[in-house]
Amino acid sequence: MLALTILGNNSALPANGRNPTAQVLQTQSEAYLVDCGEGTQQQMVKYKIRTSKLAHIFISHLHGDHYFGLIGLLTSMGLLGRTSAIHLYAAPALQKIIHLQLDAADTQLPYPLYFHPILEEGIICNDGKITVQSFAVNHRIACWGFLFKEIKNPRKIDPERVKSFEVPAAYYEQLQKGHDYKTKKGDIILNDQLTIAATAAKSYAFCADTKFNPAIAEKVKSVDLLYHEATYLKDLEQRAEARYHSTAEQAATIAKLANAKKLLIGHFSSKYETLTGFLEEAKEVFENTEIAREGVCFKI
Amino acid sequence: MLALTILGNNSALPANGRNPTAQVLQTQSEAYLVDCGEGTQQQMVKYKIRTSKLAHIFISHLHGDHYFGLIGLLTSMGLLGRTSAIHLYAAPALQKIIHLQLDAADTQLPYPLYFHPILEEGIICNDGKITVQSFAVNHRIACWGFLFKEIKNPRKIDPERVKSFEVPAAYYEQLQKGHDYKTKKGDIILNDQLTIAATAAKSYAFCADTKFNPAIAEKVKSVDLLYHEATYLKDLEQRAEARYHSTAEQAATIAKLANAKKLLIGHFSSKYETLTGFLEEAKEVFENTEIAREGVCFKI
Repeated sequence: MLALTILGNNSALPANGRNPTAQVLQTQSEAYLVDCGEGTQQQMVKYKIRTSKLAHIFISHLHGDHYFGLIGLLTSMGLLGRTSAIHLYAAPALQKIIHLQLDAADTQLPYPLYFHPILEEGIICNDGKITVQSFAVNHRIACWGFLFKEIKNPRKIDPERVKSFEVPAAYYEQLQKGHDYKTKKGDIILNDQLTIAATAAKSYAFCADTKFNPAIAEKVKSVDLLYHEATYLKDLEQRAEARYHSTAEQAATIAKLANAKKLLIGHFSSKYETLTGFLEEAKEVFENTEIAREGVCFKI
Repeated sequence: MLALTILGNNSALPANGRNPTAQVLQTQSEAYLVDCGEGTQQQMVKYKIRTSKLAHIFISHLHGDHYFGLIGLLTSMGLLGRTSAIHLYAAPALQKIIHLQLDAADTQLPYPLYFHPILEEGIICNDGKITVQSFAVNHRIACWGFLFKEIKNPRKIDPERVKSFEVPAAYYEQLQKGHDYKTKKGDIILNDQLTIAATAAKSYAFCADTKFNPAIAEKVKSVDLLYHEATYLKDLEQRAEARYHSTAEQAATIAKLANAKKLLIGHFSSKYETLTGFLEEAKEVFENTEIAREGVCFKI
């Protein structure tokens, strides 16, 4: 199971009580941070996201509302005595920005910070629990979407059955891979006698910031949850196009084309004090839409 | 009159509901920002500090809790269409950090940003309303204190008297400079018949971050309001010394040596959940002490 917590959903600058973009995707044991606008470290404290679970940070692009909170988070984790590694995935220029700031402060992080520059589409992270695939979106500067997919064994151990057949725990991994079990007496116990089908591996796609591009739908085909930016309402479609952003209707169109199970919209322009118009507009095209409201945890 | 609004008073990282260092000193017409920890732009909105009044920003040193909010504030002012200049006073390395981030975002600010590197002690700003003097303090990296002094004409126009003697408004500036007035008939009206003594020009000194150094007291002699960092209580004086910070008792000792009228203490370590111990400790040495509480506006 995956769970996505929204830490910020505004575009450009904090306004109307909304914070800039940051999200945390969590599995049972891990947390993955996607974008890190100013104030993210405080939002993580507020919404009880433990940095001890965090090892991977993904930055879509180098506009400030997506990363100005990163240097503060990185240095605060150092001040709090972190020793375990952080892997950072972002446009190459970010590495220099971070090191310049650490050097100016005469600071050395007490944990390893591994920088993974994103240069092309493909798998950028595989930690054995999840894979993350980068895909290009269409923004004013280089910007990446991220597709997260759970890695799951197709079969789960049936605890009653393995006990009754006295299968040693050392063999469980083989069972999960689909192998049958041979008893000491030489009897073959078929795999489906010992395991049960696991629930399907879940997927999450993050798309920000981008102008409308149907090709994106191909990259996130059948995803369980799609987050797509929706900076404007459709009456400002021309402004959206000119500024390399999308409307709520366009975000919903991508969800429909992709056959996504559910859509979240966010990255709202500061000009909108309320968000109900976004939901209504998107739902006309794609019914299963929700607003990426700050503090809400969406189960996938 | 000067007024100082505290936007953040914590050290190192945001904690216990306290934000990192940022303060705004205001005259009737101008606002001066001193340090700019992460989240300062949001704190300015919260405490109704208008950026339209802001033209000068002073950064004491390049530890993140004193400037990580600056790039966000600068770019947000640009997004909001600012056109009037900002003057930034800080260690030379900050210029490169800012430009690297603007370049990565392919952003050009729509207003002039004048960078004034602080290289030595002396007057770094004189806008006709105030002078600002930098002075070295003793921290792990180069760090500057700032002494603000109002520029005031010694005499104020007496509205009743200038009316009764029919002094033209064009001559008021001369009166403020101390000149007498010659009527059309050739009579001399003495200056003190037309003006009243102005209240004294006020002063404010900002001292962060520094270890205890009595030489600082000489630099802020007789200041009306002294802000001095007090990261620890005196039982941790050795830790304060090792980390180039001060205790509350040491901050109060500087205020006493300087013969300051009033002391504000701040920059509290995250290890302290409450602040009452700081006030008690400082008051034992210097009675007129207050905690630099967030959101409070101290009239000088």
